[in-house]
Amino acid sequence: MNSSDTVAPENGLREALADAARRVEQTLDDVLPKPHGLHGRVHEAMRYATFAGGKRLRPFLVLESAKLFGVTGTVALRTAAAIEVLHTYSLVHDDLPCMDDDDLRRGRPTAHKAFDEATAVLAGDGLLTIAFEILARPETHPSAEVRCLLAQRLAEAAGSNGMIGGQMIDMRAPDSAFGAGEVVLLQRLKTGQLFEFACEAGPILAQAGSEHQERLRSYARDMGLVFQITDDLLDVTSTAEKTGKAVGKDEEAGKATLVSILGVEGARSEAATVAGRAISALAPYGSKAAALKDLLPFMLTRDS
Amino acid sequence: MNSSDTVAPENGLREALADAARRVEQTLDDVLPKPHGLHGRVHEAMRYATFAGGKRLRPFLVLESAKLFGVTGTVALRTAAAIEVLHTYSLVHDDLPCMDDDDLRRGRPTAHKAFDEATAVLAGDGLLTIAFEILARPETHPSAEVRCLLAQRLAEAAGSNGMIGGQMIDMRAPDSAFGAGEVVLLQRLKTGQLFEFACEAGPILAQAGSEHQERLRSYARDMGLVFQITDDLLDVTSTAEKTGKAVGKDEEAGKATLVSILGVEGARSEAATVAGRAISALAPYGSKAAALKDLLPFMLTRDS
Repeated sequence: MNSSDTVAPENGLREALADAARRVEQTLDDVLPKPHGLHGRVHEAMRYATFAGGKRLRPFLVLESAKLFGVTGTVALRTAAAIEVLHTYSLVHDDLPCMDDDDLRRGRPTAHKAFDEATAVLAGDGLLTIAFEILARPETHPSAEVRCLLAQRLAEAAGSNGMIGGQMIDMRAPDSAFGAGEVVLLQRLKTGQLFEFACEAGPILAQAGSEHQERLRSYARDMGLVFQITDDLLDVTSTAEKTGKAVGKDEEAGKATLVSILGVEGARSEAATVAGRAISALAPYGSKAAALKDLLPFMLTRDS
Repeated sequence: MNSSDTVAPENGLREALADAARRVEQTLDDVLPKPHGLHGRVHEAMRYATFAGGKRLRPFLVLESAKLFGVTGTVALRTAAAIEVLHTYSLVHDDLPCMDDDDLRRGRPTAHKAFDEATAVLAGDGLLTIAFEILARPETHPSAEVRCLLAQRLAEAAGSNGMIGGQMIDMRAPDSAFGAGEVVLLQRLKTGQLFEFACEAGPILAQAGSEHQERLRSYARDMGLVFQITDDLLDVTSTAEKTGKAVGKDEEAGKATLVSILGVEGARSEAATVAGRAISALAPYGSKAAALKDLLPFMLTRDS
C-alpha cells in the first residue's frame, strides 16, 4: 500500500507524480549496476544520467496504464524502470556534441560534460542494453510471452523506425521548411512512440487485448503531441532558469515547430483541442483513469 | 539443404565460413529496414556498416553450435543475425572519433567517415535496438521462454558488465601497465562475452540444458582468447594491406597485450595451449563439432 493508491489524482497530480517517481527511482537503484571493477566509470555515468531529478513522466504512464487493469507492484515498476533507462539513454546520446551539443540538462552538466564523450556514448549504450535485460528477465512478468511482446514493442518504438528515426530527421533538417505534417511526424517518431509504448505497456502487462492497447496508444499519441506543443511553447515563452535547460534554441536553429507554424495562440488552441480528444479516449475507464486525464490540463498549464 | 551441411569442415572451413556468411547476409537483408522516409539515412548507415564483408565469425558460431543439437534454418539464422547486428553496432561506436578514432574498417571508410558522426551514433543505436527486436519476435523461436533467455543473455554479454565494460576499460587505460590478468579480463569482457553468447545460443535454442551451455561457453572463452592473441600478433606482424585496417596501433598507443607481455613466441605458445583446451571441451560432440574444432588451427595460422 502506498500513497499513490489513495491520493485522488484530481487533487494531487503533482503528489502522484512525485510518489511514482520515488517508487521508480528505488527500482532504478535496484536494477542498475553499482559502480565496481576497472569499468566502474561507465556505471557511474549511467547512474549520473539516470538520477538527475527528471519528472519520470514515462514511468508514471506505465504505472497508471497498468493500474487501469489492476496491475501494480514489481511487474509495473520494472517495466516503468526499463522505459525510463531507455529514455535516459536517448537524452545522453542526443546531448552529444555531434548531435544537439547540449551542455546543460535538468540544470546540471550533461553526461559528456560531467564525464567525457566516450564515457557518455558507452553509458548510453549500457542504458539501452539494460532496458531490454530488465524486460527479458523472469522477475518482470510470469509470462515469457508478455516479456517478449514488451521487448519487441519497445524495440519498435525506440528503433530506427521510431525514436531513432525521429532524431535522424531532426538532425538532418534543422532549418528545413517543414510543414505541419512533417513536424507532427517528427514529433510522433522522436517522442510520441515512446509515450505510446509507455501507455500500451499497461494492457500488455494485463494481457487485456489489442483493443485496449490501441485505445491507450491513441490517448498517448494525443498526449505526446500536447507535450511537444507545450514544450515548444516553453522554448519560446520561458526562461532557462525555470526549465533547467537552454531555451530559444528552436528559433536560433531556424527549426520549424507547430508554434512557428501556427503561432503561439494557434498552437495553444491546437494543444487544447488535442488534449480534449486524449481525455475522451479514456472515457471507458471512468475514474480509474483520473490521473491520466488530469495530465492534460496539467501539461497545458505547466511552466517548466 | 546447402553446402555447409555436406562439406566436411576439416576440408573446407573457409568454404563453410563463406557459406554461413552468405546465408546470414540473406537473413540480415531480410531483417534490416530498407531505407525509406525522411529518416532513410539512418537505415542506409545501418546497412552500410552491416554489409561490409566481415568474416561473420559470430554468426558462424551460432549456426555451428545450434547444429550440434539439430537446430537449423530460420531459428538459427535469425539468432545469428541478431548477434551480427549487435557486433556491428559495437564496431560503429568503437570507431567514433571520441573512442578509437578509426577512419578505416574492413578496407572501407568507417560509418562516421562515410556518413557523419551523428548518423553513425544513431545507426549504432538502431543496430543495437533491432538486435533485441529480432530475438523477441515470435519468428525467431516457438518458445517465448527461449526468446527471453536469448535476449537476457545477449544483454548481459553486451552490457556494461560485458562488452561495454570492456570498451570502458580499454578507453580509460590505453597506456596502463596492465599485467596478464587485466589484459585477459579486458579481452574477456570486450570480445569474449559475445563469443560466449554466440556459442551458448545453440544449446539455448535447443533447450539442451545448462550443462551444455556451460560447455559451449567454456569452448568460446578459450576460442575468444586465441582470437584475441592472434589479432594482437597480426597487429605486430602483419600489414594494413592484408588486414584491411590500421596495424601497429597497440604499440603506438602503448597498450599492453599478451604479445607485449609474453613476447611474440610466448604469445604463440600460449595461444596453442589454449586452443588445445578449447578443442578438448568439444570432445563429447564428436565429428558434429568438427567445424568448431577446426576454427582453432584456422585462427592460429590466419594472416588477416
